[in-house]
Amino acid sequence: MITLFKNPSQIITVETNGLNFKRGISMNAISLLENHSLLIEDGKILDLIPNNSLGRKKFDQIIDLKDKVILPGLIDCHTHTAFAGSRSGEFRERLAGVSYEEIAEKGGGINSTVRSVRQSSLEDLVELMKPRIQRFIQQGVTTLEIKSGYGLSYFDEIKILKALDQIKQWSAITIIPTFLGAHTFPPEYQHEKNGYIKLLTEQILPYVAQNKLAKFCDGFCEKTAFNSNEIDQIFTVATELGLPLKLHTEQFNNIGGLETALKHNATSVDHLEVLADTDIQKLSKSETVSVLLPGVSFFLNYGFAPARKLIENDAIVALATDYNPGSSHISNLHLIISMACISMGMSVEEAISAVTINAAKALGLENEVGSLEIGKSADLMVLDTTEFSDLVYFVGENKNYMTIKNGNIIYQKSE
Amino acid sequence: MITLFKNPSQIITVETNGLNFKRGISMNAISLLENHSLLIEDGKILDLIPNNSLGRKKFDQIIDLKDKVILPGLIDCHTHTAFAGSRSGEFRERLAGVSYEEIAEKGGGINSTVRSVRQSSLEDLVELMKPRIQRFIQQGVTTLEIKSGYGLSYFDEIKILKALDQIKQWSAITIIPTFLGAHTFPPEYQHEKNGYIKLLTEQILPYVAQNKLAKFCDGFCEKTAFNSNEIDQIFTVATELGLPLKLHTEQFNNIGGLETALKHNATSVDHLEVLADTDIQKLSKSETVSVLLPGVSFFLNYGFAPARKLIENDAIVALATDYNPGSSHISNLHLIISMACISMGMSVEEAISAVTINAAKALGLENEVGSLEIGKSADLMVLDTTEFSDLVYFVGENKNYMTIKNGNIIYQKSE
Repeated sequence: MITLFKNPSQIITVETNGLNFKRGISMNAISLLENHSLLIEDGKILDLIPNNSLGRKKFDQIIDLKDKVILPGLIDCHTHTAFAGSRSGEFRERLAGVSYEEIAEKGGGINSTVRSVRQSSLEDLVELMKPRIQRFIQQGVTTLEIKSGYGLSYFDEIKILKALDQIKQWSAITIIPTFLGAHTFPPEYQHEKNGYIKLLTEQILPYVAQNKLAKFCDGFCEKTAFNSNEIDQIFTVATELGLPLKLHTEQFNNIGGLETALKHNATSVDHLEVLADTDIQKLSKSETVSVLLPGVSFFLNYGFAPARKLIENDAIVALATDYNPGSSHISNLHLIISMACISMGMSVEEAISAVTINAAKALGLENEVGSLEIGKSADLMVLDTTEFSDLVYFVGENKNYMTIKNGNIIYQKSE
Repeated sequence: MITLFKNPSQIITVETNGLNFKRGISMNAISLLENHSLLIEDGKILDLIPNNSLGRKKFDQIIDLKDKVILPGLIDCHTHTAFAGSRSGEFRERLAGVSYEEIAEKGGGINSTVRSVRQSSLEDLVELMKPRIQRFIQQGVTTLEIKSGYGLSYFDEIKILKALDQIKQWSAITIIPTFLGAHTFPPEYQHEKNGYIKLLTEQILPYVAQNKLAKFCDGFCEKTAFNSNEIDQIFTVATELGLPLKLHTEQFNNIGGLETALKHNATSVDHLEVLADTDIQKLSKSETVSVLLPGVSFFLNYGFAPARKLIENDAIVALATDYNPGSSHISNLHLIISMACISMGMSVEEAISAVTINAAKALGLENEVGSLEIGKSADLMVLDTTEFSDLVYFVGENKNYMTIKNGNIIYQKSE
């Protein structure tokens, strides 16, 4: 079965030079086609052809996209969508001047989310995630990474990953589960940190790997979480078990996380708000993707990661929402793109690459999705406009008209 | 006909102490009712009564609002919704490093919007505004100010105001038209500024006032626009004609706009990003509302207005989108509220007051709308949550469930 997506105003293919993709994609580096149509066969991209060569060919299905823009489906490569409970009240108190310390003393902060997740059943978690995933789909997201990390016990971490497995079956889009047992030390191990690392490396990680419950092993290298030696131990075991790596690092402090991640050839290093100038070179020409999360800088009102310096130094920059209840309660990836452009100085073209091909690379999926190239999955978003930069320009407004996964229309805006 | 809005989780009435309203409303100063219901008769608020006193009373209509929050309908008191053309391409170029000067030389900037508006018919402008107003309604906005100011000629300014008059008839919500002929000097008067001021004061303003085409006269006091003497001349005539005043001032430079506005008892002074510390006292206990526009600071990536200092010095602070194609392409008032809280340090309560009662005061409507008090118009928004702070906490997501204007449901979210 061949479907023709006919005559959009623009098709943004996102150039990848075959299988090598662009580092620090600059102005005009993403490819813009006009007067072209897109052909899809069996869920894959069959061809991109000029409208004047369509002739009298027959197609099984024709979707008219006049006055629309086709882009690769968006990829959110860093989220904590598997949470329970609300921290709205805590957020309100913080804005009214209550300190972090006071909030933590009253049982707030990440521990409040851990309590809520532990109190939730696997089924509760699945039901909580469904409307959240629908909102991602409405935006044109076709691949979504989701981390565990609010369970922090054998039972609860595996419960979350099993909930993600159910969500994977249910969801119309690709869900990539990441194991984040090393998110923080749970309250019961605050004074017995080695015990928690033993639990992670000797019990939970082997179970996760054996049952293929996660595609990645992630961690948080920070003063309040794991130091670089602890991350090193965890990453050594994860690598032995065949799990590729990601690391939350250089968010508030430089304590060696970046080097540990690079030593283990991590697929991505995420956050980097306080990345030292002298460390930027370490990411230059590296295959490790720099995943930047401007929503956190906005939500917590502190500095942004050095996006321009990374791009100018040939690092591979991706963007993500970091959707979570505490530090980035933002599931709107379009808004993240607007922030990246306006507050971090990225160009529209760089930002689009950062949520398509570069985000695919951050998930090890750069050969399957993230650009419109022959043979790749037909994952598309269609903008309800004639100009691709409207994705960024309409700040806080959803310009997505249609979401297409493996060639199937899974969302269409109602008139 | 009496309608009961029954049993919401919370009703936020926004205390106004009778007809005096709060200055710099602080934590807990907005009134939160639980276990209450709201009674509406003939489009007005009839009563707020405890659920346990509902007894067996009969009502003509009952709307069940279990697990919802009722707030006053939102008021956007500063917008430029009456524009034509797109500046998306210019925005993309600016992000890619093209300078303002280059963009202006190529005919970009405000002059490009003026050209587009001049090329549009009255009917074109009306049609362009309709979907924009629908998006405001979907957010729970029940009163919307819209300025002229992209015509800058007798014919084109009056065309815009007449388009606003048609929109007023068409719209389900209150539209407040403001005359902003003094937005900038049009190209043809760049070297004959007195000529344009004469046109404004001797021809356009008298026509506008006589035909009641605007509720306010507004201006822009800035190095690139009008100096304070020119604003003084315009405001003197507007006052003689009976038009109350507003002024865009202290946005990039302090050139005497604030003092001129206060001398003429302006209803509001808008922007204030570079308000001098020594000028804050001038707004303390003043009846002139300080309308802050954080979307502009975000969109142009420069400093925010000193919201906290104004509030702590007893100024009346309102918030608005400043929705326009050049400096704040953001029609999402919820996002503006989130920015005000996160980036300007306002509390949730202060931000809600700033888009309800204080925004009403900025439009001279504080006795009619902006709070839920007996006798006021039944203009409401209903949040799809049990906790009012979710309006701010769900950044970039629309939590509005229902918009009610004069007691009528004019929008309800589809399931």
